[in-house]
Amino acid sequence: MSSNPLAPGAALVASVKQSAARPRLYDTAAIQQLDSAHYLHPFTNFQDLNAKGARVMVRGEGIYLWDSQGSKILDGMSGLWCVNVGYGRTRISEAVYRQMETLPFYNSFFNTTNVPAVQLAAKLVEIAPLYFNHVFFTGSGSEANDTNVRMVRRYWDLLGQPQRHTIISRHNAYHGSTVAGASLGGMDGMHAQGGLPIPGIVHIGQPNYFESGKGMSEDAFGLLAASWLEEKILELGPEQVAAFIGEPVQGAGGVLIPPASYWPEIQRICDKYGVLLIADEVICGFGRLGKWFASELFGIKPDLITFAKGVTSGYVPLGGVLVGDRVADVLIDKGGEFNHGFTYSGHPVACAAALENIRIIEEEELVRKVAEDTGPYLKKRFAELGGHPLVGHADSCGFVAGLNLVRRKGATMHDCQLFEPEQGVGMICRGYLFDKGMIMRAVGDRMIVAPPLVMTRAQIDEMIALIRACLDATHADLRERGWVA
Amino acid sequence: MSSNPLAPGAALVASVKQSAARPRLYDTAAIQQLDSAHYLHPFTNFQDLNAKGARVMVRGEGIYLWDSQGSKILDGMSGLWCVNVGYGRTRISEAVYRQMETLPFYNSFFNTTNVPAVQLAAKLVEIAPLYFNHVFFTGSGSEANDTNVRMVRRYWDLLGQPQRHTIISRHNAYHGSTVAGASLGGMDGMHAQGGLPIPGIVHIGQPNYFESGKGMSEDAFGLLAASWLEEKILELGPEQVAAFIGEPVQGAGGVLIPPASYWPEIQRICDKYGVLLIADEVICGFGRLGKWFASELFGIKPDLITFAKGVTSGYVPLGGVLVGDRVADVLIDKGGEFNHGFTYSGHPVACAAALENIRIIEEEELVRKVAEDTGPYLKKRFAELGGHPLVGHADSCGFVAGLNLVRRKGATMHDCQLFEPEQGVGMICRGYLFDKGMIMRAVGDRMIVAPPLVMTRAQIDEMIALIRACLDATHADLRERGWVA
Repeated sequence: MSSNPLAPGAALVASVKQSAARPRLYDTAAIQQLDSAHYLHPFTNFQDLNAKGARVMVRGEGIYLWDSQGSKILDGMSGLWCVNVGYGRTRISEAVYRQMETLPFYNSFFNTTNVPAVQLAAKLVEIAPLYFNHVFFTGSGSEANDTNVRMVRRYWDLLGQPQRHTIISRHNAYHGSTVAGASLGGMDGMHAQGGLPIPGIVHIGQPNYFESGKGMSEDAFGLLAASWLEEKILELGPEQVAAFIGEPVQGAGGVLIPPASYWPEIQRICDKYGVLLIADEVICGFGRLGKWFASELFGIKPDLITFAKGVTSGYVPLGGVLVGDRVADVLIDKGGEFNHGFTYSGHPVACAAALENIRIIEEEELVRKVAEDTGPYLKKRFAELGGHPLVGHADSCGFVAGLNLVRRKGATMHDCQLFEPEQGVGMICRGYLFDKGMIMRAVGDRMIVAPPLVMTRAQIDEMIALIRACLDATHADLRERGWVA
Repeated sequence: MSSNPLAPGAALVASVKQSAARPRLYDTAAIQQLDSAHYLHPFTNFQDLNAKGARVMVRGEGIYLWDSQGSKILDGMSGLWCVNVGYGRTRISEAVYRQMETLPFYNSFFNTTNVPAVQLAAKLVEIAPLYFNHVFFTGSGSEANDTNVRMVRRYWDLLGQPQRHTIISRHNAYHGSTVAGASLGGMDGMHAQGGLPIPGIVHIGQPNYFESGKGMSEDAFGLLAASWLEEKILELGPEQVAAFIGEPVQGAGGVLIPPASYWPEIQRICDKYGVLLIADEVICGFGRLGKWFASELFGIKPDLITFAKGVTSGYVPLGGVLVGDRVADVLIDKGGEFNHGFTYSGHPVACAAALENIRIIEEEELVRKVAEDTGPYLKKRFAELGGHPLVGHADSCGFVAGLNLVRRKGATMHDCQLFEPEQGVGMICRGYLFDKGMIMRAVGDRMIVAPPLVMTRAQIDEMIALIRACLDATHADLRERGWVA
């Protein structure tokens, strides 16, 4: 028996190992039938899915998944940008079990608190930039960005500037899927359904050098893209602008790594007009870009940082906002009651999972590894894919990477001939990846990965080989269709 | 060792029991100090809390909690209306452990699914009213109501009636704390911060018989309160109205149990004008009112049912929307991709917790007990509190109950003399309850409970005795202040 009285015992550990070695059989057709009949999936064309039947994921270990047919899959997307420490981390299961046996839930309303929530708040403050001393917990990144909308408006109300109401975001940004989160986001498909965005949220262009930077140096384009913020602030009037929000690297938009000149200029503009800066680090945080928070990598000092996903490696739902001193001081000193929060804010089980997850990241030095070892190695290997005849551009930052599929390569990325969007070349490529046991996401014709931070150099080699094989298969397919030479 | 290869072993079970018998010591002052320094609590005046220091909840078992000082507390509020099966249910901890060791996370985007999400969708359909066949999962009740806003607008768009955009809700309703959720809600304090509500959401009066029913029978008042919906629909024009949303019994508003005539008339009006009906059962669902869903109790047929809290007894964050055939058929047949969803939608660990929680509710027949045994017993014992000199009115429904503190009783509830809101009598009473180890919530001067559904008759007696003692203490206190005779 373990020395920790609440730790799972030796018998449990043995039984789990035994089970993993003896995989369960699943009746895939029966599961698919129930799935079609009852489960409305997120971001899905239900009719299409029902016609095809869903792939049933049943087990994970490290960077690998297994489906109900027994196929092994390399998960290049960390679940959904979240399983930073990989699957099957028994330490987190144990921490969760212990917390559930102790106190599975209690709220933090009405002057009560719980130990894991307090410990996690303190831990997050420890790993965040120096001037972050407070945490507001939510259940997800969507709820956290939704919280930001109310928090920045409350901040300006308390400072006697209620007209500072408008939040500036960017086209093709992703900030969650609540009404306010999707309004902050800049996804046309989301705005087309249900009457979004809500008033008081406006969008500027994104720093997409591949798409829009033709004829300019990267640095010059970064300054140009940042200048769109200043233009918008001046158009609205600085006294109307509450905040600017952005992902340090746009994730769902297609792993768009901004020019180095972009973020410092955004910071300068926010400072100049007193506009709050919100960094949405739901994807970028917790080591993904080789820092605890990517704001440090890009040299910015946001007033609020949105987090979720990597905070628990997705094992238990959790999100929140790191609140910098500028905002926290006003809310605490002048705010009275902040009339906002969630039943699951500071959920003890979610916070216990996060604490153990962060301990793993620390003990295995995953942030340093991504910064100094596996991240640079991924960059080198991913850049090699740029030599493939289908790839017009390949880049990476820490443990996110992307490549653009093109009809014909050019002297520079801006001279490539692109496919027509209707050809759906990205989805054709994703099909080959799926079939060959490799998960990579297609955003238009940009293929992206965000692997678990525990991925080794050997596993990076394995992933690159899989991607290359699928690029070859896609290339052969497109040649047969007569779409490429 | 257990026969189930993934079940925690005997050593684990023994070790957990040993730990429960040997409670850990906590440094309360140190925890409070960290709490004040870093944790921004939900719905809290941060400065006030920091001055007092939070109560630290550390352990739960059945209907009881223990704080860091070792005090035992009877939790009359089920955590926050959610711990339906009580604390310390090892079966749920085990189910969660097994799932985390198998597949701790995978998303349901991109044509993939996972077994617990599918099983839970099927189970929810089984326990829901007959014409509910689909489930959309979210991470919370807030996200679920937020989803409703986009789903009902999408529904009408797909039917070629995009002008059917407005949603009608009620003053003093609670529908969560996202921007859209708080806009649906009718809480003045929330609307006063951050520029709420958003456009397209309007509010009518609530069916609060105690407050507004003077001179009328309960049934007549119920019909009057329902008629406000018809008035509002006609004022807006029926062709503008997308949906009406309501909690079957308003929870956070103060356990407001509507007259029996109210909901059938609301249903009739919705039917007459083709308006969708959304039942927010985040509190009322999963047996709380003696039915799986309270809509059955009140004889209504909502098109959408919001759920959260009781679905997992709060052990892991989870929420969602039960989608009736009227809406699901349109979304599936005509909808294409529904551009909405969350990373944690269909989270395998949350769904595994829900499945085990529902199994417990079924096996222990908690829904039947609340309907036929402990619910009626609570009603009888709670009604007795109506005889207390401070109590002007006491009522209950299933396992929610409330009583109104009044300055002087009258011949009927409408003839009572009330305290001034500024006197804060509810909070004075809550203080005595807190000190005596009983959690009850104060909504103005209405004191409310919503105990775990596992509460026995003997425990109901214990709770009533505690409440009575605190009413006595409050009475003596108010007499000393000269506020009552």
